[in-house]
Amino acid sequence: MTNIITISRQFGSGGREIGKKLAEKLGYDYYDKQIITDIVSKTELASSFVEGVLEGKIKDSLVYASENSFDMALSYQSMEIADIHKAQTQTIEEMAAKGNCVIVGRCADYILKDKPDINLTRLYIYAPMDVRVERCIKREKENENYTPKQMAKEIKKIDKDREHYYSIYTGNDWGDIENFDFCVNTASMDMDAIVDGLAKIAE
Amino acid sequence: MTNIITISRQFGSGGREIGKKLAEKLGYDYYDKQIITDIVSKTELASSFVEGVLEGKIKDSLVYASENSFDMALSYQSMEIADIHKAQTQTIEEMAAKGNCVIVGRCADYILKDKPDINLTRLYIYAPMDVRVERCIKREKENENYTPKQMAKEIKKIDKDREHYYSIYTGNDWGDIENFDFCVNTASMDMDAIVDGLAKIAE
Repeated sequence: MTNIITISRQFGSGGREIGKKLAEKLGYDYYDKQIITDIVSKTELASSFVEGVLEGKIKDSLVYASENSFDMALSYQSMEIADIHKAQTQTIEEMAAKGNCVIVGRCADYILKDKPDINLTRLYIYAPMDVRVERCIKREKENENYTPKQMAKEIKKIDKDREHYYSIYTGNDWGDIENFDFCVNTASMDMDAIVDGLAKIAE
Repeated sequence: MTNIITISRQFGSGGREIGKKLAEKLGYDYYDKQIITDIVSKTELASSFVEGVLEGKIKDSLVYASENSFDMALSYQSMEIADIHKAQTQTIEEMAAKGNCVIVGRCADYILKDKPDINLTRLYIYAPMDVRVERCIKREKENENYTPKQMAKEIKKIDKDREHYYSIYTGNDWGDIENFDFCVNTASMDMDAIVDGLAKIAE
């Protein structure tokens, strides 16, 4: 049996931090951005396009076309998006086949559900908006100066895009708690205590 | 600091089982039905009436009247329901003052939120309907012979009543995950592993 922990998270909820710490604590592999690199190398598509599709920012080739040149619109069609979906499934399955791991995002919870020989723990990490706004403002780059209101708007947009991609890819509602084994509110709890408890559960 | 774990749960999700085991493991007091007994003794109202109000079955005195005699309708007015609310708050606060404990249901998550000197962990226990139906049919009494369809209907009704009471008492939506620190799907996981992990988090 391979132990796999998937992490779905609201933007700014600290899901990535929990994932990293959990992998470290359990001695598991940790996959996050590498999923995009792998899909890029499988599909030979532009990295920005792959990331845009996976984050739900690029909803179809026409949206991408309107934001870029007409030439790019001709070269990127729905076929490419289908290729990304295929490469995404394959990448996640390959990662799972390598052994115990933590996978952040990318519909891994859906892709690995009901697979034989996998002991899957699907986490959903969330927090109230004010807590997420505060966390995002703390970590913003020097040249960014969002007001809390602007940041909340940005967070909502990112979540909405991710939700869109998740529902297109899985047919499920993102945030429907029945798709997860554990949902964790990071607002009031100590991250290390959360990680300790989750490690105990997932082991 | 007193450690208090509150458990809100969908009917048939195994919330009470988790609460009992958690209290046992941590050596905490466990409160469930005793809350009703305490409220009955504080208000001197009929036990069936108190329970009916707390479970959201009795929505106001007129509902109770239509299901019982007219005399009872005269004696049970909204004042009595307000008394129950008051006694409920008092009972939960008294239990919390005694020391570390697990409290199942009764809006304890809401009553104890933001109280000083309390380290509160608010759990929400849930499971998909088919799992809850199966669990409820397994534990039904000898003279009960629900079909899965009838049982699902019954479960939905109980949840709806509880939801009603929670929203009247707290002004919040029951099942809104922002009101909880941890939500646990009992469908696919081993109860003992869940309890071990939660104990680690709540300690």
